[in-house]
Amino acid sequence: MKNTFGTNVLTTIFGESHGPAVGGVLDGLAPGITIDYEFIKKKLSLRRPQGQISTARVEADEFEIVSGVYDGKTTGTPLTVLIPNKNVKSADYEATRDLARPGHADYTGFVKYNGFADPRGGGHFSGRVTAALVALGAVAQAALEAKGVGIGTHIARLAHVSDRGFSDLNADIAALSDRVFPVLDSEAAEKMQAAILKAKDENDSVGGVLETVVTGLPAGVGEPWFDTLEGLLSHGLFSIPGVKGVEFGDGFALAGMRGSEANDAFRPSQGGVVTETNRNGGINGGISNGMPLLFRCAVKPTPSIFQTQKTVKLSTGEAAEISLAGRHDPAIVHRARAVVDAVTALVLCDALATKFGTDWLGGTK
Amino acid sequence: MKNTFGTNVLTTIFGESHGPAVGGVLDGLAPGITIDYEFIKKKLSLRRPQGQISTARVEADEFEIVSGVYDGKTTGTPLTVLIPNKNVKSADYEATRDLARPGHADYTGFVKYNGFADPRGGGHFSGRVTAALVALGAVAQAALEAKGVGIGTHIARLAHVSDRGFSDLNADIAALSDRVFPVLDSEAAEKMQAAILKAKDENDSVGGVLETVVTGLPAGVGEPWFDTLEGLLSHGLFSIPGVKGVEFGDGFALAGMRGSEANDAFRPSQGGVVTETNRNGGINGGISNGMPLLFRCAVKPTPSIFQTQKTVKLSTGEAAEISLAGRHDPAIVHRARAVVDAVTALVLCDALATKFGTDWLGGTK
Amino acid sequence: MKNTFGTNVLTTIFGESHGPAVGGVLDGLAPGITIDYEFIKKKLSLRRPQGQISTARVEADEFEIVSGVYDGKTTGTPLTVLIPNKNVKSADYEATRDLARPGHADYTGFVKYNGFADPRGGGHFSGRVTAALVALGAVAQAALEAKGVGIGTHIARLAHVSDRGFSDLNADIAALSDRVFPVLDSEAAEKMQAAILKAKDENDSVGGVLETVVTGLPAGVGEPWFDTLEGLLSHGLFSIPGVKGVEFGDGFALAGMRGSEANDAFRPSQGGVVTETNRNGGINGGISNGMPLLFRCAVKPTPSIFQTQKTVKLSTGEAAEISLAGRHDPAIVHRARAVVDAVTALVLCDALATKFGTDWLGGTK
Amino acid sequence: MKNTFGTNVLTTIFGESHGPAVGGVLDGLAPGITIDYEFIKKKLSLRRPQGQISTARVEADEFEIVSGVYDGKTTGTPLTVLIPNKNVKSADYEATRDLARPGHADYTGFVKYNGFADPRGGGHFSGRVTAALVALGAVAQAALEAKGVGIGTHIARLAHVSDRGFSDLNADIAALSDRVFPVLDSEAAEKMQAAILKAKDENDSVGGVLETVVTGLPAGVGEPWFDTLEGLLSHGLFSIPGVKGVEFGDGFALAGMRGSEANDAFRPSQGGVVTETNRNGGINGGISNGMPLLFRCAVKPTPSIFQTQKTVKLSTGEAAEISLAGRHDPAIVHRARAVVDAVTALVLCDALATKFGTDWLGGTK
Repeated sequence: MKNTFGTNVLTTIFGESHGPAVGGVLDGLAPGITIDYEFIKKKLSLRRPQGQISTARVEADEFEIVSGVYDGKTTGTPLTVLIPNKNVKSADYEATRDLARPGHADYTGFVKYNGFADPRGGGHFSGRVTAALVALGAVAQAALEAKGVGIGTHIARLAHVSDRGFSDLNADIAALSDRVFPVLDSEAAEKMQAAILKAKDENDSVGGVLETVVTGLPAGVGEPWFDTLEGLLSHGLFSIPGVKGVEFGDGFALAGMRGSEANDAFRPSQGGVVTETNRNGGINGGISNGMPLLFRCAVKPTPSIFQTQKTVKLSTGEAAEISLAGRHDPAIVHRARAVVDAVTALVLCDALATKFGTDWLGGTK
Repeated sequence: MKNTFGTNVLTTIFGESHGPAVGGVLDGLAPGITIDYEFIKKKLSLRRPQGQISTARVEADEFEIVSGVYDGKTTGTPLTVLIPNKNVKSADYEATRDLARPGHADYTGFVKYNGFADPRGGGHFSGRVTAALVALGAVAQAALEAKGVGIGTHIARLAHVSDRGFSDLNADIAALSDRVFPVLDSEAAEKMQAAILKAKDENDSVGGVLETVVTGLPAGVGEPWFDTLEGLLSHGLFSIPGVKGVEFGDGFALAGMRGSEANDAFRPSQGGVVTETNRNGGINGGISNGMPLLFRCAVKPTPSIFQTQKTVKLSTGEAAEISLAGRHDPAIVHRARAVVDAVTALVLCDALATKFGTDWLGGTK
Repeated sequence: MKNTFGTNVLTTIFGESHGPAVGGVLDGLAPGITIDYEFIKKKLSLRRPQGQISTARVEADEFEIVSGVYDGKTTGTPLTVLIPNKNVKSADYEATRDLARPGHADYTGFVKYNGFADPRGGGHFSGRVTAALVALGAVAQAALEAKGVGIGTHIARLAHVSDRGFSDLNADIAALSDRVFPVLDSEAAEKMQAAILKAKDENDSVGGVLETVVTGLPAGVGEPWFDTLEGLLSHGLFSIPGVKGVEFGDGFALAGMRGSEANDAFRPSQGGVVTETNRNGGINGGISNGMPLLFRCAVKPTPSIFQTQKTVKLSTGEAAEISLAGRHDPAIVHRARAVVDAVTALVLCDALATKFGTDWLGGTK
Repeated sequence: MKNTFGTNVLTTIFGESHGPAVGGVLDGLAPGITIDYEFIKKKLSLRRPQGQISTARVEADEFEIVSGVYDGKTTGTPLTVLIPNKNVKSADYEATRDLARPGHADYTGFVKYNGFADPRGGGHFSGRVTAALVALGAVAQAALEAKGVGIGTHIARLAHVSDRGFSDLNADIAALSDRVFPVLDSEAAEKMQAAILKAKDENDSVGGVLETVVTGLPAGVGEPWFDTLEGLLSHGLFSIPGVKGVEFGDGFALAGMRGSEANDAFRPSQGGVVTETNRNGGINGGISNGMPLLFRCAVKPTPSIFQTQKTVKLSTGEAAEISLAGRHDPAIVHRARAVVDAVTALVLCDALATKFGTDWLGGTK
């Protein structure tokens, strides 16, 4: 379905980095959900570059809800968010316009769209488009929170610095919700930021791993084949620029375990069922088991670096060298966090609507 | 879409472990593709348990093509494969029928389907259903091969033994195509099999990592958002039982690299464009760049082990202990390889049809 | 989505007229629905040719449920029906194999599938495939009936004979449910059958109009745009061979009315809301209003007639004449009724699952 | 998929009558299609109310293309159109806000959206939303015309006045393309307009039948089941407010014919194949046969009339009377024409992309 994603709650996104606006449409969300404008603003601000560790292109992200909200609540009809692009400096891209930036989608976009793609600032491939995802995701996340479903993401690893793992989940989620640099251990946070600045000084960039936990998700959500929770989430998560790996529970580490170690034993708890461990990340056979959902995304280092790189001219295929101008992030891991939260919220709203119907997430009059 | 997957080439699968048959429908595949029955049989045999390292339940997998083939070629209308279940011993499951097997989908299936799921042998969650995927995938893979697109998967790691990496891709793909135990380095293969037998002796099981390469895929396939090649492939791959992680190119290792290391520089080559390295696994911005596609799947150890495990009764939620009877695999990594090949072929046929139209993969009269 | 249809309850059909079997997969239906084999048989028998007014090719339609049912109830996983083709006489088609039968899909199928379509008996285009639709639709219809949703279809008009309109809806639905020739007024039924036999005597065929009513459908089902109830139903209904028109409520007659006549005034009734008239067929703005759903399908005369017709050779495009052999129906209107019921049931189950969630139609343990 | 429609070329629409804007996203259209702003403006003007026969609410329809166009050509990424609502008089609706307007979606929208729908001017159900469809459809139609596919729609019947049928198709399409009141016979046009004014004088409204022809569509487009051309087109057409019937070729009249009359005999013509008659409207077995596509939509009379009508209060269900204020159309048949053209163009672009791939409609550099 290309730029539309979902079955019952559908997300459509559009826009180019240097076009008039980016935006998105969220369709199928229940009616009667209160719109928390401050929450949307906060999530957008968490995605927005801030301080020395980010690009100097700062957008106000003054979003407008163009449809789907009436009297401060969702109507149930398509909710459209529009975020104008204001701080656009296309001139920065003029010199390198015919050059394929390594690690970027310039070359593949050129081939796919037969040379007609908007080349300015990465066009439709730009991370800028994720602002729309974050705004829509914030609406979805607020709806989930009202139903007791919490989402939190931290930087588990950046360059070679690791954060501590999740422990008290609800406290950790609460602590992360306001942090611009989403790390649980403040000492690790400082080291990570130092690593970013060091890379920046060396005209280079760093990557990292984001780890997400979801609490309060009912058991029984997801499908046995194809639309497994892992399949739905990864499908969404891999469209976040820079994400090159997704793993659930202990993920790749499970490949080195024995079954006796990897199986999560069940036991009764407070009238329900829990598992002793959670190595499967809250999912068995593609379906939520009521334990916290746990997954990690590998984010590659930002491809925009200030070093001369070998490349080709798009128009002729000839060899060339490229030296980037413009404003770029030495790391996007912390900013990508808001997008991971958003995609997670959107996918879960969709899966919950499939199970419980359109109105489940909504309000009553 | 639940048990149907794809946009232009759609795969639907059905069946239960102990029901009359498993099967699947492949719709939208081009007309005029020659059906190579021997190739389908070979792929099914690679999925089938063989020797000491696998379960003793061996199915003949005598498939029948019920529709969509005429005069030995695809008609372009839905191609249906039916694989009867013959070697069924439901009695093995009677004793543990009300017990949730840890690491399996018994509990989540019970919750999701309100107690109505077929409990025999995992029902619709059974790995048995992948036989249908493999049969349909073989049709897709043969069509891709005729177009110069090759797919090969090896066990990159099992327990703690690693295979060598891909080197001469076409030779490696050819070598793997007939190997029941798909490992490039024969010494590594022996060590892996020893690790499986050791785990079996200890009533335990092992997991591993499968690595797949695709050659000959044209540049420009995939979408910038949502239906990225990574998103489409991972969506499919995560529905393979036991897969808990998927990474493309250098995947999670990219998170620890600098941008200068992770970017793949472009250069001209033979009238086209190649990259100096392939750390992004042949995909930039969700779209193929013409380099080999490269990805890895983490497969957890088989959850069926012959040790007493703690669990709950499905009907009451009470604590219980479970000791499995039946026939189980101490490892499924090698068998899962055929399913990875199949899912890869099905997803790529779909993405190619989206780009080039329905007939692209087909024949002419 | 080609041969798969639906959003939450998905129908996939497959098979060719002279292949081993036709069949279908129903995915997403709620677990715990009791399978009424006699009801499925009855619906299949209503589709089956009977007596002088139908083709002499009579199939036993001994269906097998291959998956998705356990202990007599739906499991919630894909339900697959297989109906073997037994009474196949491909020889009848040999002589005319290279000739495009006028009014049939031979020519369009030849073009679409580049000459690879199965030509025997219309291949995948054959009305035979509707047997699978009827079997799956019967499962859906039984589930709806258990929820108080009734579906009934009669021949409103055949050749130039009209039946009386619906009056006491539940009584009419009950009366029609067992009638092989579904007409409310027995005198009209006789005249219609006489018209069919007259056409048959003259080596010709007749068409007609089927009218369907649905009672008990809750208000609020359907979407305002695209997935309107009218859009969903017509999408399904037009895939019934021979259907060339679909109208809701007073349909085309509304085009000649004034607004004051066409509007259905609302009034309170027994704690709910009803309309004084039902010219809009129970649908306002694409969404059910709680009144009976009412629509009509125009069915063209069977294209297979025993007169010499002008046509072309498929292989060369040269002019030719065609005289059909084989076994054909002088009318399919009465048989198409069972297919209309089936498609209606399948579409409504899907729309209800979208609104109320997967489990709404199901049972509890 | 609710407010998104299509498989390869997807249309998403959004907006409310009295919200900030209506708009839509067109995704999957080929890159390199020249945007003809004048053509879009013309199509919007044909949808816009003009003169005595329409509502006094006239919107400038100053659309903005927010994404997907670069250097005057489509980029291949989502094309978004935004049309601000400027001439909004919500006060007109205040008095009747709690009353269900008969023939409108107020009641069903209230039930479906649990009372949260935007009630002003019909909210998301408003015909105003079709402006977005027309703008996107104009882009699609221009692309089709560049490929030799022409679309034309006339009012075949309004109240009880009939237009002449199509004769010289290309000349008729050209003549209709600029006509605000799309009727082929100028005398009939005058009578129709007189009938509209008469209804208006009598505080009433009229309906009509729109007839559409499509020339130049290649044979072989569409699917045998479900995604038949009839199914796809009707699915889209029934979401046009007021459309209550759709028929192809001779449609309901076919139900009264003999097979010998209804079959369209094939004959060779200029190296290709044509049919002697075109009673099947260019479609056999759901697939285009290369003849002109022909279909008709029944449009009911505008439900907004200036007569006192019986109804209920939405909030309580009590009986009430309603007398509309505001600005309304005594007929929308002529305005609906532009929407029929748009939906037709969007559906055909989608079906063509499925057959021939994404790039088929696009340009080359």
